[in-house]
Amino acid sequence: MISMADPNFRTAARAAADLVADYLAAVPDGPVWQPMDPAARQALLEAPLPEQGRELTELLQVIAAEVMTAPMGNGHPRFFGWVNAAPAPAGVLATLAAAAVNPSSAGGDHADVHLERAVVRWIAELVGYPAADGAGGLLTSGASMATIVCLAAARQRAAARAGWDLREDGLSGLPPLVGYATGETHSCVRKAAELLGIGSRQLRVVPADAQGRIDPDGLRAAIAADRAAGRLPFLVAASAGTVNTGAVDRLDALADLCEQEELWLHVDGAYGAFGVLDPAIAHRYAGLDRADSLALDPHKWLGVPVDCGCALVRDAAQLRGTFSLVPSYLRDEEGDGFGWFSEYGIEQTRPFRSLKVWATLAHRGRAGLAADVAHCTALARRLGELVAADPELELLAPVETSITAFRARPAGLDEAALDALNRALPLAVQKRGRAFVTGTVLAGREALRACLINAAATESDLAVLLAEVRAAAADLMHPQ
Amino acid sequence: MISMADPNFRTAARAAADLVADYLAAVPDGPVWQPMDPAARQALLEAPLPEQGRELTELLQVIAAEVMTAPMGNGHPRFFGWVNAAPAPAGVLATLAAAAVNPSSAGGDHADVHLERAVVRWIAELVGYPAADGAGGLLTSGASMATIVCLAAARQRAAARAGWDLREDGLSGLPPLVGYATGETHSCVRKAAELLGIGSRQLRVVPADAQGRIDPDGLRAAIAADRAAGRLPFLVAASAGTVNTGAVDRLDALADLCEQEELWLHVDGAYGAFGVLDPAIAHRYAGLDRADSLALDPHKWLGVPVDCGCALVRDAAQLRGTFSLVPSYLRDEEGDGFGWFSEYGIEQTRPFRSLKVWATLAHRGRAGLAADVAHCTALARRLGELVAADPELELLAPVETSITAFRARPAGLDEAALDALNRALPLAVQKRGRAFVTGTVLAGREALRACLINAAATESDLAVLLAEVRAAAADLMHPQ
Ligand SMILES: Cc1ncc(COP(=O)(O)O)c(C=O)c1O
Ligand SMILES: Cc1ncc(COP(=O)(O)O)c(C=O)c1O
Repeated sequence: MISMADPNFRTAARAAADLVADYLAAVPDGPVWQPMDPAARQALLEAPLPEQGRELTELLQVIAAEVMTAPMGNGHPRFFGWVNAAPAPAGVLATLAAAAVNPSSAGGDHADVHLERAVVRWIAELVGYPAADGAGGLLTSGASMATIVCLAAARQRAAARAGWDLREDGLSGLPPLVGYATGETHSCVRKAAELLGIGSRQLRVVPADAQGRIDPDGLRAAIAADRAAGRLPFLVAASAGTVNTGAVDRLDALADLCEQEELWLHVDGAYGAFGVLDPAIAHRYAGLDRADSLALDPHKWLGVPVDCGCALVRDAAQLRGTFSLVPSYLRDEEGDGFGWFSEYGIEQTRPFRSLKVWATLAHRGRAGLAADVAHCTALARRLGELVAADPELELLAPVETSITAFRARPAGLDEAALDALNRALPLAVQKRGRAFVTGTVLAGREALRACLINAAATESDLAVLLAEVRAAAADLMHPQ
Repeated sequence: MISMADPNFRTAARAAADLVADYLAAVPDGPVWQPMDPAARQALLEAPLPEQGRELTELLQVIAAEVMTAPMGNGHPRFFGWVNAAPAPAGVLATLAAAAVNPSSAGGDHADVHLERAVVRWIAELVGYPAADGAGGLLTSGASMATIVCLAAARQRAAARAGWDLREDGLSGLPPLVGYATGETHSCVRKAAELLGIGSRQLRVVPADAQGRIDPDGLRAAIAADRAAGRLPFLVAASAGTVNTGAVDRLDALADLCEQEELWLHVDGAYGAFGVLDPAIAHRYAGLDRADSLALDPHKWLGVPVDCGCALVRDAAQLRGTFSLVPSYLRDEEGDGFGWFSEYGIEQTRPFRSLKVWATLAHRGRAGLAADVAHCTALARRLGELVAADPELELLAPVETSITAFRARPAGLDEAALDALNRALPLAVQKRGRAFVTGTVLAGREALRACLINAAATESDLAVLLAEVRAAAADLMHPQ
């Protein structure tokens, strides 16, 4: 067992520091992504469990040669795929310190626990969600987890109102709980509904407008029909930035409706909530502060290294009522009544995520983050203009936040051929290595979407992206 | 926005390397833990969201002064509380590299994804769980999450056998599913049962022997009674190392029973499964390889920096059948048929946990890890001997793995007074700062338990622990 006081550790730590500095400095000049060399892939997949140990510095050489050479690509300024950020430098360094301290932020009197309470409040302040008066939340491994936490609290409240002890008795015997979403709602909501035993059939897809925003009238009709059938409507799952087009629901109207109908309003802000930092689009988020719960992802637009999600609820006591067990060996006999974080969510041992959030926010400040976000939304709008100006491309949705959805539309192809082309385009672009974009299906049509969440991207990167799309399309249509 | 090529980043990264090297080298000479200074605690709790940013090196100074000065204590060789490990040095450095690359290990063709498949196999091999023939699993944020993943698969199989489409229809309308556990089963199993909508009432506490191991006859009777009442028995949750005493269930007998009764055998090996690496106690784990699912925690005995749990299942297709959604924008059009990790669990964006597992295992090798584990089990037995030899102390359970449960029993106190004393003892010991032990309740009696999972601990650390317990007990009985 190496002692931590071993001079080898210091030497290796400095080598690791140089390794990541070299790596990060070289990212913009390399390919965005490339398929792995088959032999290198097999070597990773089939590596045998080592019987004997190896020196730290030797391990770093292996990491440099076999791992850091085959990244996902999301550190690159021309990575526009899914919603994967480049790591904020302050967050990267904080991760090292957090791992060295290695606490469990389950609870107790140590810095990490108190820091988490502060940064959860900071995140709430950033997006204008109430931070006082009983509101609160916790960091999670991502928005999928945050969604489960929030929806479990919603389920708990609904069952309690029906006079049902859900934690004790489970769902068998309770009439079906019903939630409402749209076809553009992120799949993590469906996954949560299935995990929680609600069933995806009971997550109704309600009518939406052309931008994919919930239609309140259609929603009201669906609720009435479910009530008439003896089911228990309990949840509206709205979006503050859908993953495909970045659309934001009309949250104020939905909050009104949920108040009247006594439903829980959950808002998925995983991708888009931090868009509210840009004054140019902040108005789209009116009503966000009225949500019963909000799922966020600091590991997306803020660039906090993965993993880091956040669940915020208007009434933190409802989280505690949903999750707290407090077994005898974890008693909190001191403190200010907050108790343990593990009483508010699913994880028992909880990593020190707050330090990388703290460092990322403290490094940029609110003002710096707002400037980064505004830079991204402006780039996305600019990309929309460039697409609209090109007769061989077609913009498929208005650019509401920082996602630009479009497709190639070369003259003379029918819809089936256009779908085939656009279905093949993302991988074709990716394999060229100079830009990375992913695909989706919008209103039944194959589409590309570029997600702008890296403030290091510039307008010339947009030009490269479109040039690559055109070149890849030409290759697909006229293979050599 | 700082550029990654900025020389400031390299300077700060080196400063961070020295910071953690200094920190780790100093840990053994400092107090294990101390209550935070109230002003320092308030400063963390009330820190305002910064408007402007700060330099990286300035942030590191704040981390050194305000965060690393108030750790949980689990890096110290005399931390014996709960089940919290000291961080393995290779894992700490790997965490830095992983954060710099910052992929999502949801899936795709990049090194982190392939590496995760390898280390999941390594973990299975380490504990003798089948690694081929369709078995598989994934890394999670901890055993609580792994338990949810495993139990969701168990629930899915049971519903399917009852002809029920659980993912679509949910649990409302299905007869109650029933699982079996003991009073010593970790609370994460109850938490999973509640989250999954099964209800804690349907997690039956079945009879156990003096060591807290499930009594197969009592279990059989409980199953029969539930079947007769029209309920659906589906799960036995066994332990390979309980959190209070380290007891290991008779897994072979339970595997036989589960085969006969067609129940899912889940084994919670979060704390104890890696004990099988010690030849002296490996026989206790006979039957572990027959579990339908196994929850493990590399962030416990192996010292992988938090967070890192692992879910293993005998039939990985059942995980995929439970969780896969594969929305259109995440299609896997290439590869060997494994698909995406996100289809096998709950998380969508998934952190690069595998690198710290890989580094920890590669640094020590299987042989080194086995030696570390054997060192810990020997220390725990030695602590048991020291306790048994002291007339003022009482051993409360046989030392089966590496947990020693005991209490102070000074002459002349009745049971109520002994309970009061032992209830107060953990915090009193902790506050003295020289050793850290936590409490629990065993068979109705207040107890202390020391968990030995840090191979840096020595026999002289055990002597300090017992001296501290005696001194704290004396203080409590005769306050100055
Ligand atoms: C709108 C939206 N919601 C939820 C999620 C899921 O978040 P995570 O991957 O952090 O679990 C995503 C991820 O892309 C998203 O874009
Ligand atoms: C036996 C046992 N099971 C499960 C858990 C929960 O694991 P985690 O804290 O990683 O979620 C623990 C944690 O101490 C444990 O000791």
